[in-house]
Amino acid sequence: MATAYHGKILRVDLSEGRLWTEEVPEVLYRRYLGGGALACHYLLKELPPSLDPLGPENRLIFMTSVITGLMISGANRYTAAAKSPLTGGYGEAEAGGWWGPELKAAGFDGIIISGCAPKPVYLLIADGKAELRDASRYWGELSGEVQDGLETELGDKRIRVLQTGVAGEKLVRFAAIVNQLKHFHGRSGLGAVMGSKRLKAIVVRGRHKYEPANKDGAKVIFNWFKEHYDRENDTMHKLGTSRGVLLLDKAGILPTRNFQQGSFELAKEVSGQKMAETILTKTGTCYACSVACKREVDVPELGVTSKYGGPEYETIAANGALCGVGDLKKIAKVNQLLSQYVLDSISTGATIAFAMECFEHGLLTKEDMGGIELRFGNADAVETLVQMIGRREGIGDLLAEGVRRAAAKIGKGAERFAHHVKGQELPMHEPRGKKGLAIAYAVSPTGADHMEAPHDPLYEGFHHSGNPLGGPLGLIEPIDMLDFGPRKVKAFFQCQKVWSLYNSVGMCDFVGVPIGSLTLDKLVEYVNHATGWDTSLYELLKVGERANTMMRLFNLREGFGRADDMLPPRMFEPIGNGVLEGERIDPEQFQKMLSLYYQMCGWDPETGVPTEAKLADLDLE
Amino acid sequence: MATAYHGKILRVDLSEGRLWTEEVPEVLYRRYLGGGALACHYLLKELPPSLDPLGPENRLIFMTSVITGLMISGANRYTAAAKSPLTGGYGEAEAGGWWGPELKAAGFDGIIISGCAPKPVYLLIADGKAELRDASRYWGELSGEVQDGLETELGDKRIRVLQTGVAGEKLVRFAAIVNQLKHFHGRSGLGAVMGSKRLKAIVVRGRHKYEPANKDGAKVIFNWFKEHYDRENDTMHKLGTSRGVLLLDKAGILPTRNFQQGSFELAKEVSGQKMAETILTKTGTCYACSVACKREVDVPELGVTSKYGGPEYETIAANGALCGVGDLKKIAKVNQLLSQYVLDSISTGATIAFAMECFEHGLLTKEDMGGIELRFGNADAVETLVQMIGRREGIGDLLAEGVRRAAAKIGKGAERFAHHVKGQELPMHEPRGKKGLAIAYAVSPTGADHMEAPHDPLYEGFHHSGNPLGGPLGLIEPIDMLDFGPRKVKAFFQCQKVWSLYNSVGMCDFVGVPIGSLTLDKLVEYVNHATGWDTSLYELLKVGERANTMMRLFNLREGFGRADDMLPPRMFEPIGNGVLEGERIDPEQFQKMLSLYYQMCGWDPETGVPTEAKLADLDLE
Repeated sequence: MATAYHGKILRVDLSEGRLWTEEVPEVLYRRYLGGGALACHYLLKELPPSLDPLGPENRLIFMTSVITGLMISGANRYTAAAKSPLTGGYGEAEAGGWWGPELKAAGFDGIIISGCAPKPVYLLIADGKAELRDASRYWGELSGEVQDGLETELGDKRIRVLQTGVAGEKLVRFAAIVNQLKHFHGRSGLGAVMGSKRLKAIVVRGRHKYEPANKDGAKVIFNWFKEHYDRENDTMHKLGTSRGVLLLDKAGILPTRNFQQGSFELAKEVSGQKMAETILTKTGTCYACSVACKREVDVPELGVTSKYGGPEYETIAANGALCGVGDLKKIAKVNQLLSQYVLDSISTGATIAFAMECFEHGLLTKEDMGGIELRFGNADAVETLVQMIGRREGIGDLLAEGVRRAAAKIGKGAERFAHHVKGQELPMHEPRGKKGLAIAYAVSPTGADHMEAPHDPLYEGFHHSGNPLGGPLGLIEPIDMLDFGPRKVKAFFQCQKVWSLYNSVGMCDFVGVPIGSLTLDKLVEYVNHATGWDTSLYELLKVGERANTMMRLFNLREGFGRADDMLPPRMFEPIGNGVLEGERIDPEQFQKMLSLYYQMCGWDPETGVPTEAKLADLDLE
Repeated sequence: MATAYHGKILRVDLSEGRLWTEEVPEVLYRRYLGGGALACHYLLKELPPSLDPLGPENRLIFMTSVITGLMISGANRYTAAAKSPLTGGYGEAEAGGWWGPELKAAGFDGIIISGCAPKPVYLLIADGKAELRDASRYWGELSGEVQDGLETELGDKRIRVLQTGVAGEKLVRFAAIVNQLKHFHGRSGLGAVMGSKRLKAIVVRGRHKYEPANKDGAKVIFNWFKEHYDRENDTMHKLGTSRGVLLLDKAGILPTRNFQQGSFELAKEVSGQKMAETILTKTGTCYACSVACKREVDVPELGVTSKYGGPEYETIAANGALCGVGDLKKIAKVNQLLSQYVLDSISTGATIAFAMECFEHGLLTKEDMGGIELRFGNADAVETLVQMIGRREGIGDLLAEGVRRAAAKIGKGAERFAHHVKGQELPMHEPRGKKGLAIAYAVSPTGADHMEAPHDPLYEGFHHSGNPLGGPLGLIEPIDMLDFGPRKVKAFFQCQKVWSLYNSVGMCDFVGVPIGSLTLDKLVEYVNHATGWDTSLYELLKVGERANTMMRLFNLREGFGRADDMLPPRMFEPIGNGVLEGERIDPEQFQKMLSLYYQMCGWDPETGVPTEAKLADLDLE
């Protein structure tokens, strides 16, 4: 069974139109597994500090992992990474779907893109071969047209298309990248990096299914998952991520009206339950996944089709509750626009909500807005603004810069309505009610990012697992969501390694979480079956820790420091309504717990700089 | 399968003759597993600092673990612990055999003994009941007579007898505790603690075999081990630990003539091979173990019988090469005396070798020695001195204090011949040739102790495991024995967690090592099958790390500091012969690597005091 796992990277220099391949030695896979950790390894090695993220020298990396493409639920995710134009620090975003497995089936484990094409191109990768092709005709087109156009041009409906949108072409700082119109690399503004390189799309087609080192072992796990996964009772399958709307509203932690409130009076109207009763047509899924959490919706009267899937929790919350909008059909329409322009739905909704609060306080006027009455609850305004941002038209040009830069330009104290960490807008989870998130958001290497920041209910997931003392992380005793002491920091510290691992090994949180600890054990087996190795959960969590520390090093090199590990001012103010009305983060306790977290990581407790010992422990030079 | 693991502790107050039982809640087992970690938990809780280790207030603890008694190779070990009269710090020593499993079969998971009996007693534990009985008739008897006497008194040959010897009665600071005459708690001088309490023996008899939560799972592993263990080709089975003599001699790291040399010209004469060809009569074993590394020897002309087993590597090296003695039969005789008086064979041999070097330099005279010409190579002198130490007669009274105290009394610079850490004599492994041991000995909580200090070839064991990149600890690349940089410290740091875990979970190194990484995976399964938990290697290694930090806390409380994490002067001098002639530890590099190790542990790099964050990470208050 012992075998060697080697990776093949496709290198693309767009400036010179040159393509070549490179081997990734097994030792790098053992150390990084793939995904974010391996991508960060290349970014640290190849990017000099202080470089313009939208210049040709930035690298745009797509990286699968040793398990991507296994016939196993959750093993379809892969990473896009680059220096972020939104934060100026390390940027990454994971996506699911079929594109990652297809890239591997086409003979490549990753792609590293440098330079900038003289005119728009797309990259075609098919069965071990790669070429650049003219994409002028797709430049300026909405995503659906690009997808259709490429399928027609190539005469193949089975290609997998990854693309940046009009928003990316226009260098919107929170432009996303999407594959097959539905699977997003949402955060970090990577669509703008792709746009800046004039790389419209990457089309992959592969006919060589990835063969694990131990095929029988992999099959056993596949069957084990099928047997153990209780699909009928998993609300993630039944309601998708939007199951969260009502749960969080009830708990007083549904971000509402730009985080002024924690409960939304129209939550029921925009809930997953409501979606299931009204506009839902189908459940969607990713490669080989039984969880099938994706939604597909139709709203014929608004021109919304299931081609673009359907809104997820983050989209509903950011463009619904956060903007005071309680109309699910209109949110579905906004969701389609976000997909068409290929925008990060969190940052877009958060930026609009920010503008709404500015407007209500007179910091932005109707004139600034080109006549739009930008009050909370104005669904049509949201719809209009998404398109203006996507095209950088009018006020959209300012908002396309994200809340940090927009607030700085608006001035007049607009910063207090700009909820971001390191320039990236807060996701739809409330640190004031899930206190672990206060540290999680503050220290996430990509800025506020729920994909880098496991939050409190997840600790419970790793605590509970059938056994009263359960959980393979040693989180023996349960811990309250409002607790904000050393035990909470410890719980976050442990779970963060898992999250960071998932982003490197390409495992989906939604598969990892519902089955909890069993999946962590099985994940070790996945990796061993894929590679023929003899790894352990201990070694895998080291990879997660290593990746997190590498990203820290990247940011330190860019000049980030303790002051950047900060929450927006609103987090220190009380929640305005709901069952947690009055709850806030204590600023002194925050600083104390931040120091404790640094120290727990093996970083200097004052500066957050990794110690020599931690670098040695993690084999980092 | 979910079940609750509860432990039952027998409490004994010898001063008052009172016995009672106490439950150990499951949460403590999940956090500590048993053994050293759980024992240290009680010592930290119950012992005030600065207490006399030989006074009634000291606790003597015997602790099994959640897996002790499983029908599985290696799962028979248990811990004895107390404040050490040799070091004044945390003291522990593990032993194998049948006594631990028998204690569990008798209904107890551990024993905590306090007070001091007015006259000699022994403790009888049989099938859930316990009583103290008069042991006056056994006081002053050699171990074999005590064993025989108790078997006769109780009319049962199947009792398991654990006892302190004459050396313990006499409070020799490195007196050991032995069970069934052959299985030693060697280090830390715990026999003296038992002697100080006038507790001669603990006899156990149990008829209720320990039932794991998942019996079928445990059986699968038992069979797996039988199938995978290549007994015929394992030199540990064929030659026992004494396989090391020739290997280490060839490598230039067989401690010879009180660590003046690394190679012994008579190594072949005292080797495991020689033993197999001459005096070996049988291989011995422990409960349910297929490795069977124990030796039994007969030397009729010297009165040596297999009743006391046979010499192990440490005994041969300490009382052979270290004393310049090259006569295996005489070493077998010394081994029998060590067993009869119940002495730590390492500290005894090391103390005699120290005295020899003092003698050769004129610091001890023939008069001091009662007429003995104490030169290196004088086998008869070793034989005589063992008995004098065991009875504290003549010069034996001084030497019974151990090298640190003896050197202080002798003065005249005798300290430079006294090779100890924290007062405990160096085991028979050479830090100058296995550089990881330099830090390992220096920081071991019990002083220089090979059971707390994994050494360099073991890193290789955790590196290699069939796969070229192998090993579940993430030690991806091999590392040279003479390397003394950050990578070496890291390798030791990782492996130390395993060693510390083994001492808590009661797993034998000799079972863990030959099969290497597979056993670490299987160990997780052992624990899960025994308890019904869902633990992981990650959580288990946290237990190891936790235990090591707790022992650090114990020692800090007793006033130990960085200056006590020091090697004896000879380690900074060159090895005098062999292939590593001239090799030494660089004192500056040692201090640098010590700081790095502290920092890697999450301790202050200057003082070695655990940081607040590390205490939180380990759930220690």
